[in-house]
Amino acid sequence: MLAATYVGDRKLTVVEREPRSPGEGEVVIDVAYTGICGTDLHILHGAMDQRVTMPAVLGHEMAGTIASVGEGVEGWSIGDHVTVMPLASCGHCPACLSGNSHICHNLNFLGIDSPGSMQASWTVPDKVLVPLPASLSLEHAALAEPTAVAVHDVRRADLREGERAFVVGGGPIGLLVACAARARGADVVVVELAEPRRTLAEQIGLRTLDPASADVEAFVSEWTEGAGADVSFEVSGAPAGIETAIQALAVRGRMVVVAIHSTPPPVNLFRLFWRELTIIGARVYEREDFQEAVRLLEQGAIPADLLISRVEPIDEVAAAFAELESGRAMKVLIDCHSGDGDD
Amino acid sequence: MLAATYVGDRKLTVVEREPRSPGEGEVVIDVAYTGICGTDLHILHGAMDQRVTMPAVLGHEMAGTIASVGEGVEGWSIGDHVTVMPLASCGHCPACLSGNSHICHNLNFLGIDSPGSMQASWTVPDKVLVPLPASLSLEHAALAEPTAVAVHDVRRADLREGERAFVVGGGPIGLLVACAARARGADVVVVELAEPRRTLAEQIGLRTLDPASADVEAFVSEWTEGAGADVSFEVSGAPAGIETAIQALAVRGRMVVVAIHSTPPPVNLFRLFWRELTIIGARVYEREDFQEAVRLLEQGAIPADLLISRVEPIDEVAAAFAELESGRAMKVLIDCHSGDGDD
Repeated sequence: MLAATYVGDRKLTVVEREPRSPGEGEVVIDVAYTGICGTDLHILHGAMDQRVTMPAVLGHEMAGTIASVGEGVEGWSIGDHVTVMPLASCGHCPACLSGNSHICHNLNFLGIDSPGSMQASWTVPDKVLVPLPASLSLEHAALAEPTAVAVHDVRRADLREGERAFVVGGGPIGLLVACAARARGADVVVVELAEPRRTLAEQIGLRTLDPASADVEAFVSEWTEGAGADVSFEVSGAPAGIETAIQALAVRGRMVVVAIHSTPPPVNLFRLFWRELTIIGARVYEREDFQEAVRLLEQGAIPADLLISRVEPIDEVAAAFAELESGRAMKVLIDCHSGDGDD
Repeated sequence: MLAATYVGDRKLTVVEREPRSPGEGEVVIDVAYTGICGTDLHILHGAMDQRVTMPAVLGHEMAGTIASVGEGVEGWSIGDHVTVMPLASCGHCPACLSGNSHICHNLNFLGIDSPGSMQASWTVPDKVLVPLPASLSLEHAALAEPTAVAVHDVRRADLREGERAFVVGGGPIGLLVACAARARGADVVVVELAEPRRTLAEQIGLRTLDPASADVEAFVSEWTEGAGADVSFEVSGAPAGIETAIQALAVRGRMVVVAIHSTPPPVNLFRLFWRELTIIGARVYEREDFQEAVRLLEQGAIPADLLISRVEPIDEVAAAFAELESGRAMKVLIDCHSGDGDD
């Protein structure tokens, strides 16, 4: 089978490998599709070289079919459609013991800390499996993981029906957050500088705002009758986005920081004080978020067809990464079986 | 009577004034003591010249006795001991309508936006009065307002019995926060650079840490068995304090920003993400915080005798401000009746 590996020095190599037989409690998945995540790009850029073990099989956004099950595996059968919640926690650190195993101090993130799904056959512990309904295509289901991120963000915000949600940044996660917020019954606006992204957001039926041409403060004031938004999501990753997300909030408003800010940016703590705001960190997801993500995809609340810009064969993985990097694509999937003739 | 007024240019002047007769719904208070707040120092430094109307009677931390009541005032009698929650809200802005009148968009903060209590006689609307028990001395009761700030901070943190609370900064508000947290049943540590402040904190029975000589990370790890603190309070006002308060937190820990940061400091949003932290803004107080503050003072949970460094007559107000500014004093009170022979 083929596997896409990161070998350092900004290089991806597609190699022929033998699938690994399932150990006790493991299953082997025939991977149908794997999406490329911003984190995968980050790895390609060398930013996580100290964390990954090269050659590293990337990928953690996927859907596939169970090909074989190891000893002791119960409740799963060959042919089941599955996705994976790619977190393996230690079970004994303070985070795990306090019920937050998704942010385990010793977390093994499949596809970063151990081999991922950008290969035709992926062997994983059965406890990471999430069932998929037959009615959901495997292509759409490959969005379950980023959708679970968005569902988690919305849940961390405790977003309620009828509340106003301001999403700063209209990339893949921003649009998924916007869709998840809309599915909760919120009134959503997406702020995005790039015109193609705004156009896509509008195709999805989302209201958009161009912060370069609009008076954001005046817009928010009119939209919210002078109150400000109940919730904002910082998905831009830019310091200016943080300020926009804070300024938009009503008294007691909540901002969820979705984007990863590697170096400490300036944050308007005066505004935090003045309006008694709350800033909330959100990281990955919990199982209920994954289950909700699958439901949203099945219901069509996530417009997967519009979000998936293209599907590339695994032997074109380097070109697929370049396409995503160019900013022209929203989600790019890798067809993991395309290269070895068994698809 | 005498009144201490800020006249601009870093100057305070004590002037002779006529007390103002109470209008409808107003009472006149014989002010016993008024404490000097950090905000008063801030005004003296000219930082709020655009907000105050000079000559400005400062002061909003006080206790006194009702001297007369205007028409339509019910439930209050001459001789009642009272303190004041110095907030007058508009009642019709989005904050007021959402039940957050303490952070009204058009808030009138008595002692900043309108005349304060650093005078022998203070005329205020009856709705700002808070009753004091006879068993509580008026000197101690003058700490009700800053204690209410601390109670509000602890309530915003949703601090629960048995939780570990890390208080960064051991000035007047820091120590009050620590005492309010202890009264909630929390395990409290105060981090403070200045040795005299640590000594006072220890006299109060609080555990302290000198961040200049101790390894804070190792201390927190040992204290919390590797988990981190449940709650931290940033009361230092310094960027380094923010980082200390964030780094100390456990997964899902909450940081309350108590100090006012006028310019946006760098904030470690990576740690916020990594541990799913929450940063909470807190401003002034609500009526229940004032009532709880009075209860804590009455119960002796707030060591007022140790916190009040000195009591100065009103005609020594400039020297009293200088004493506080020097950093040698914790709380300094002004005896508002001392100067005019009627005390």
